Amino acid sequence: MEILNSLVWPRGFYGDGLHAKLSRYSDKFDLGWIVSDCVADAAGVFTLNKFPAAPVKLTKKTIHKTQKLQALVVNSTNANSFTGQEGYDNALSEQKIIAKKLELDKDLVAVSSTGIIGEQLPMKKMFFGIEKLRKCKNNHIAQAIMTTDTKQKVASLKFGQNQMLTGVAKGSGMIHPNMGTMLSFICTDAKIDGRLLQKLLCELTELTFNQITIDGDTSTNDMLIVMANGASGQPEILANSKEYDLFKRALHLLMKNLAIKIASDGEGASKLVTANVCGAENNLDARMIAKKIVGSNLVKAAAFGEDPNWGRVIDAIGNAEVDLEAYKISLTINSIPVIYKGQVILNDPSFLQDAVKDKRLVFDVSVGNGSGKGQAWGSDLTYDYVKINAMYRT
Amino acid sequence: MEILNSLVWPRGFYGDGLHAKLSRYSDKFDLGWIVSDCVADAAGVFTLNKFPAAPVKLTKKTIHKTQKLQALVVNSTNANSFTGQEGYDNALSEQKIIAKKLELDKDLVAVSSTGIIGEQLPMKKMFFGIEKLRKCKNNHIAQAIMTTDTKQKVASLKFGQNQMLTGVAKGSGMIHPNMGTMLSFICTDAKIDGRLLQKLLCELTELTFNQITIDGDTSTNDMLIVMANGASGQPEILANSKEYDLFKRALHLLMKNLAIKIASDGEGASKLVTANVCGAENNLDARMIAKKIVGSNLVKAAAFGEDPNWGRVIDAIGNAEVDLEAYKISLTINSIPVIYKGQVILNDPSFLQDAVKDKRLVFDVSVGNGSGKGQAWGSDLTYDYVKINAMYRT
Repeated sequence: MEILNSLVWPRGFYGDGLHAKLSRYSDKFDLGWIVSDCVADAAGVFTLNKFPAAPVKLTKKTIHKTQKLQALVVNSTNANSFTGQEGYDNALSEQKIIAKKLELDKDLVAVSSTGIIGEQLPMKKMFFGIEKLRKCKNNHIAQAIMTTDTKQKVASLKFGQNQMLTGVAKGSGMIHPNMGTMLSFICTDAKIDGRLLQKLLCELTELTFNQITIDGDTSTNDMLIVMANGASGQPEILANSKEYDLFKRALHLLMKNLAIKIASDGEGASKLVTANVCGAENNLDARMIAKKIVGSNLVKAAAFGEDPNWGRVIDAIGNAEVDLEAYKISLTINSIPVIYKGQVILNDPSFLQDAVKDKRLVFDVSVGNGSGKGQAWGSDLTYDYVKINAMYRT
Repeated sequence: MEILNSLVWPRGFYGDGLHAKLSRYSDKFDLGWIVSDCVADAAGVFTLNKFPAAPVKLTKKTIHKTQKLQALVVNSTNANSFTGQEGYDNALSEQKIIAKKLELDKDLVAVSSTGIIGEQLPMKKMFFGIEKLRKCKNNHIAQAIMTTDTKQKVASLKFGQNQMLTGVAKGSGMIHPNMGTMLSFICTDAKIDGRLLQKLLCELTELTFNQITIDGDTSTNDMLIVMANGASGQPEILANSKEYDLFKRALHLLMKNLAIKIASDGEGASKLVTANVCGAENNLDARMIAKKIVGSNLVKAAAFGEDPNWGRVIDAIGNAEVDLEAYKISLTINSIPVIYKGQVILNDPSFLQDAVKDKRLVFDVSVGNGSGKGQAWGSDLTYDYVKINAMYRT
């Protein structure tokens, strides 16, 4: 199975995006949708922030009613977050207007937003924009969901009997997802029950989107939705089957690909930082350690400075909420052995100095003899991160 | 009671510092000590990092044997962390050499280090330096413990019947203390039992040093030690007495002052950021929320950019592990009301735009009707933070 870095819409799915002039500061596409020909089974994971945005509240409720969707609409530049009852009513209006336009039950429509917190959506512009969305198969939605992203994040994957998985994602700052990511929407023409899909999605989110971090902040708008419309005509994917295992592998691959695309495009990022941890008591411990490494501002700043300061990696590991013993730790940095079972074995620091100049920085850590493994991905901390976030609004 | 921003050694205490040439990259003082004329009751709190440095392991053991100390020695530029058995043996040698020099039991000597992780202490230079330390009353130790600090952090406070509290601290990066801070040493000529002092120190650490954060990283070397030698001649301070309440107030004030000095001198910091939270279910919840605000990279970058992007404060509050309701939240920024009970009431953003230009940024947050209150302190995230940490070692 091979990832294509483009949007290949699965059978029966349409996508479009356009410039609805939602912000006077930007002239990029800011509104988009995904529509299926028929009702799709659906699953979603959402931010754990205590102040979920209006579209998160509404869409969570919508999906969990029947685990079905047929359309989703999304805008950037305005998060419709911390907007009170008026914000929730606006999200409801969006849902209704899409349902009317497509002649669907409103409970088949998801709404999603990203952008500035605390401002009401410009509803006239939203309606005007929604009016113009078409059932076509372009890649405009990838741009429509971008905020400070510098790259469109799309991926497609063919699997099994000519079935297709396609996903789009956005996210660049405020990235430290917790049961969701900034925004990601995935479609497939495979057929799978919504409840089974939900279970699988939660499982794979823990391994992918929840293992990336840019800055330790979880946004109010994180949302990840998968729709499966069955338009491939292939038989339904049932639990505990060969087909389920294959679908799981394919979805995992696609989600990991999109998650890593978000990590590489972290605000101001110049490097992708990967931590691979093994030898932990269990997978969860390994993932926690991996995420501590890629989440440490000090490791991230050293990565930017191409400084082989491995003490910071050790410090970060030691801050994980996991039982650890120094004498069991081994560490390699871009394949250069640095520590073996607690002993510093880096003979010639100049090797490491060269290795950390790479655009990709990989920390391989073994913490003992356990079978637990985990990965996490992040970016370096750069002048540009500070610049982007010091100047975002004004 | 008024804080003096200088080191006024309490009766029977001596302090000294000098340049022991521990690093070839620096010519500042790098070794110091504090000595008491007589045995002092003592208490300490230490890092919760899973890989505590050798001096942390040794000093923790030493203090908890008898809650007594008579001297402490500290060096900067080398943390003696992740240095295995050799590192621990070196810490022991330091302890013994100080004990010999002062003719004390070695269990009355604390050792402490800060600096680079993963290198062995240059013991010849250490011994040579220790040889030259004198029982005088200068402020050289304040410089001897500095690493990337730009300012010496000292404070003194007279209380009760002519009793004195004096403290010194260092810390600038890797600051997100957890049961300790980078380094802080406090002396008093009051008399108080070591176990009572230990209990009080733990209580006050939660309110002061554990409520500052620079970058979310807890170092392997954090250590906070208090020594009380009773040389004032005043009666012993007993639990549940008027004198205990007074001593508690004085120690709280001194610790808070030193903690805020660390936060203001955060690596690259241009602003001190304070969060005051009230209305929480309990004090712990309030402190957690306050720390989330000052710990958010996004809030910190906006502070640097003087950007009145209050949505990030809301996002940070919502990431606290506390039950919260949006409609109960009120927020003022440098006294400008922004949100009242969930409603945005900021009429004229230009007021806020002006207010955030202040060198001190204060967020007052009410989250409900509870009686829980808490404060936290941090710095902004600047280009210089990235620069310092990208270039620290090389």
